[in-house]
Amino acid sequence: MSATRFTYLGPEGTFTEAALRTLPEAATRELVPMVSVPAALDAVRGGEAAAALVPIENSVEGGVTATLDELASGEPLMIYREVLLPIAFALLVRPGTALSDVKTVTGHPVAQPQVRNWLRANLPDAVWESAASNADGARLVQEGRFDAAFAGEFAAATYGLVPLVTEIHDAENAETRFVLVGRPARPAAPTGADKTSVVLWLGDDHPGALLELLQEFAVRGVNLMLIQSRPTGQGIGNYCFAVDAEGHISDRRVSEALMGLKRTCPQVRFLGSYPRAGVAQSDVRSPRAGTSDGDFTAASDWLARCLDGRA
Amino acid sequence: MSATRFTYLGPEGTFTEAALRTLPEAATRELVPMVSVPAALDAVRGGEAAAALVPIENSVEGGVTATLDELASGEPLMIYREVLLPIAFALLVRPGTALSDVKTVTGHPVAQPQVRNWLRANLPDAVWESAASNADGARLVQEGRFDAAFAGEFAAATYGLVPLVTEIHDAENAETRFVLVGRPARPAAPTGADKTSVVLWLGDDHPGALLELLQEFAVRGVNLMLIQSRPTGQGIGNYCFAVDAEGHISDRRVSEALMGLKRTCPQVRFLGSYPRAGVAQSDVRSPRAGTSDGDFTAASDWLARCLDGRA
Amino acid sequence: MSATRFTYLGPEGTFTEAALRTLPEAATRELVPMVSVPAALDAVRGGEAAAALVPIENSVEGGVTATLDELASGEPLMIYREVLLPIAFALLVRPGTALSDVKTVTGHPVAQPQVRNWLRANLPDAVWESAASNADGARLVQEGRFDAAFAGEFAAATYGLVPLVTEIHDAENAETRFVLVGRPARPAAPTGADKTSVVLWLGDDHPGALLELLQEFAVRGVNLMLIQSRPTGQGIGNYCFAVDAEGHISDRRVSEALMGLKRTCPQVRFLGSYPRAGVAQSDVRSPRAGTSDGDFTAASDWLARCLDGRA
Amino acid sequence: MSATRFTYLGPEGTFTEAALRTLPEAATRELVPMVSVPAALDAVRGGEAAAALVPIENSVEGGVTATLDELASGEPLMIYREVLLPIAFALLVRPGTALSDVKTVTGHPVAQPQVRNWLRANLPDAVWESAASNADGARLVQEGRFDAAFAGEFAAATYGLVPLVTEIHDAENAETRFVLVGRPARPAAPTGADKTSVVLWLGDDHPGALLELLQEFAVRGVNLMLIQSRPTGQGIGNYCFAVDAEGHISDRRVSEALMGLKRTCPQVRFLGSYPRAGVAQSDVRSPRAGTSDGDFTAASDWLARCLDGRA
Repeated sequence: MSATRFTYLGPEGTFTEAALRTLPEAATRELVPMVSVPAALDAVRGGEAAAALVPIENSVEGGVTATLDELASGEPLMIYREVLLPIAFALLVRPGTALSDVKTVTGHPVAQPQVRNWLRANLPDAVWESAASNADGARLVQEGRFDAAFAGEFAAATYGLVPLVTEIHDAENAETRFVLVGRPARPAAPTGADKTSVVLWLGDDHPGALLELLQEFAVRGVNLMLIQSRPTGQGIGNYCFAVDAEGHISDRRVSEALMGLKRTCPQVRFLGSYPRAGVAQSDVRSPRAGTSDGDFTAASDWLARCLDGRA
Repeated sequence: MSATRFTYLGPEGTFTEAALRTLPEAATRELVPMVSVPAALDAVRGGEAAAALVPIENSVEGGVTATLDELASGEPLMIYREVLLPIAFALLVRPGTALSDVKTVTGHPVAQPQVRNWLRANLPDAVWESAASNADGARLVQEGRFDAAFAGEFAAATYGLVPLVTEIHDAENAETRFVLVGRPARPAAPTGADKTSVVLWLGDDHPGALLELLQEFAVRGVNLMLIQSRPTGQGIGNYCFAVDAEGHISDRRVSEALMGLKRTCPQVRFLGSYPRAGVAQSDVRSPRAGTSDGDFTAASDWLARCLDGRA
Repeated sequence: MSATRFTYLGPEGTFTEAALRTLPEAATRELVPMVSVPAALDAVRGGEAAAALVPIENSVEGGVTATLDELASGEPLMIYREVLLPIAFALLVRPGTALSDVKTVTGHPVAQPQVRNWLRANLPDAVWESAASNADGARLVQEGRFDAAFAGEFAAATYGLVPLVTEIHDAENAETRFVLVGRPARPAAPTGADKTSVVLWLGDDHPGALLELLQEFAVRGVNLMLIQSRPTGQGIGNYCFAVDAEGHISDRRVSEALMGLKRTCPQVRFLGSYPRAGVAQSDVRSPRAGTSDGDFTAASDWLARCLDGRA
Repeated sequence: MSATRFTYLGPEGTFTEAALRTLPEAATRELVPMVSVPAALDAVRGGEAAAALVPIENSVEGGVTATLDELASGEPLMIYREVLLPIAFALLVRPGTALSDVKTVTGHPVAQPQVRNWLRANLPDAVWESAASNADGARLVQEGRFDAAFAGEFAAATYGLVPLVTEIHDAENAETRFVLVGRPARPAAPTGADKTSVVLWLGDDHPGALLELLQEFAVRGVNLMLIQSRPTGQGIGNYCFAVDAEGHISDRRVSEALMGLKRTCPQVRFLGSYPRAGVAQSDVRSPRAGTSDGDFTAASDWLARCLDGRA
């Protein structure tokens, strides 16, 4: 049944599966790997799965464009959860392979820039060829097509490989953010440490359009956590922007900013309000003076008194 | 009875009286001249008059500070109407006086800069001394204290004087704006060509405070028609701002801007929404795209759908 | 000779004279009272005086419009010094007059709002009539035309009067700012605690014009200390702005902002850079990070390297 | 010799090679395919090549992150030319293959989203697997590993394949922008239709940092053509921005904006000023009023007069 099935960007043994398994609700679901982000999401759109876990942002590579573009177009979807996973690669080889034996390496294209420096230092002559996924790279090593694959250490057993080197990551604090995506429904109640995701299209090509869009947030004291430009497919120089803002759509400062954007932008797509991973309510800085829900209520009350001749 | 009485900045024969007599509702009221703007307004505050007509802005001299400061402080009052009056002075003299006889001239201090060039050109040696009002200057000429007074031509008869020269005004299109002020009540319904007056106090002395205040209007597409700084009395460099904005408090873009200012500024005083003098609805430019009431309603509906999982 | 003569807003015994006497350079000059601000400034324009001291801003009444308008128009003038004077009035009467004898009071129109509360509390029935200046009011009391005049205590002796009450001022910290104005010349060298005065005309009536003008300052980190709207005389709703900014025209952030304004505004009038009264260099807050002269020089050097292919 | 060698993102038969061959200067150079963008650029850094042609932006996929990240870090490089190439794919197969025979397809990961809709419509059951490049995909088809490859039609002959379908592109007007990159040197002289590329790091995480950065451009009337966020590698939520602005570094409005950014941002990397591909000087809109070089010169002259006491 769809309600019991979660898809994810497969194959088995990817970081996405590892991220999915950190979610308590995953324990009671059937977890189904899919060949691509679009496939994982289309299963949700089509009702064959209740939700899909897909990567959306990487601290080294940036936004995961396949995910951003899928969420920005097609049948609407919504984000309900996010998961942060520290990313470190293991160099997986067939048992018996030494580092000096490694002439060819593989891995997901996104992995390459995260291990580039390590490769230059340790395997300067190894030839890199991309695989469809890190796990798929491991499979290709198992099949003998490559000597080594960069993948999560947890993938070794699945493919009969061994981790020759572990904890490989060029950047400190490398991590990937994953999102759990479902069909549109009411957002979860605010937790006090939430974020809101939207995709915004710029109105026309007048030079200040992005500036005006940012001011819709700034005037209401809403902080931005991500702003990622994406081409609209209408030709070079036409962008939409994926934006993550602090706060929940039910926070008055957030909802007023969203409505302002809805009036200003030719298109706005609400992607959800959901708890921030790894952030407790006590970690969240207070909203700017004058932007709490109480401030909004007090201002509404004042306006009502003005309209009533009692201000 | 107070409901039948309107006060105005007297004495009789001032431009203020002339402005008041242009209002249809004045025809059925007792019109009472007062010695000063505070006196005219205090009569309203105290219930002895239903409303007061006072000057608020002059195209030559700028904001009338006594009026602005009275409206900004003390018991709240509200503006219900405005009147624009073209200002041209007559040089009033006792019958038989020739221009060459005029050695001393008088008038309200505000009149002086409006006739300065005329004086330089026509009476370069005449000595100016200020009077408490233009009409009071006429009275002083009647009493023989001065040779001539600048006042409205209509004031001549009251004081037994004759207009020696008329249509004196250094600036083209000189005009004065007057406001009819009453105790707080519901603003009149919008006419489609309205303005809204407020007084805004800046939050603290951080450099961008005025910029932020203006952005509360700009983000909602509300145009400003007047911005007049006034000292708060808290020492040099401390200001509040009297602002006139296009539109009515019941327009959504205006009310949202006002609520934003209420949240941001330590103090906001709503002075009223009222029809713009001399402007028909057809003269008013359309609000910026995305800021009509319909746009606000559509955005609210969209937000409701988002909250409901149906966007 | 003009070089030895300073004019000031007279007559003798005004606060302006008291302010002028605080300047060391005044000790060696002939100090000539003039009947009005325009007269004092025209004497400078005409070469009959080296400089004029005139009031420009009052913590109760705001900008002194006669001075602002004279500086904004006509033959250019420049400000070289400013003087701050605490303002407290004395009630001057003829010897033998008791408070209960006072039925009529006079003073400069600007004095009235500064003593309004005191009058309400202490002389509620006294009739106010304006005089051409505070000192002139004292003269009128001397002549018997009024019972009492509000003026500086120092004016009593000149007119044979006595101070019946002293230290009258409705607002705490009431003070007036005066400026010493001369013909255009090189500004004095920066002291580290300077201000720069300009008059700015808005380009057209597009709603954001004032916002853009303020951003020219904000982007360069230049703080504003005064912004005073003044009508241009071109009809209600047309303003120019008198602006005082922190810093000296030779500071790079100030000069770049001024050039930006010169390019953006249809008209800019530079009124001078001069030391701030009562402020030591050590009291001045540091410029915002990235806006010191050293930062400008470093950025210029970097640009030169870019242009040279060495960045 | 390095001066005669240009590298490019290989292998032979890619769109990059096709783009490179549109440049007149390529005709006299040795064109060397490299396995990756970093390899192509490192050859320039190391002096083995005079320049490298690499893709930087795709109308479907957005910024080419490998190129953006290489230009933003490591030994500085500069952009001297750009090339725009319309992108249409051919489906390359071994001679004799019919569309119904195609069970597996390959191509560069960037190609996939550009042919996704075509695949859904025409080969819904075909399995996609990524190749290291489009040309490499062609080679894998030649070797029999896949049934068909998406690549440029021009690549068919090189690999003994035939184009089964041509002009495949999901989006109208799909095009890719390539840049010719060399070691830092003086930028080419302005042509009147130029662009300037920079990478900007945000100062700190205060909410308005991006807004301030955009205002440095806006205040000087510099239009932006691209703004692409890139992670800095310092953890989720830390970005730098690749920005393309209209105009040449020798335009005064551009140089002043760049110096403003240099002062404001912790790091700015100038990537070059170069002619805009496919845009004639006559197509370029005039700069905003007040931002031409003549306006800057006039403002400088005015400032000099102010400093000299002659304004």
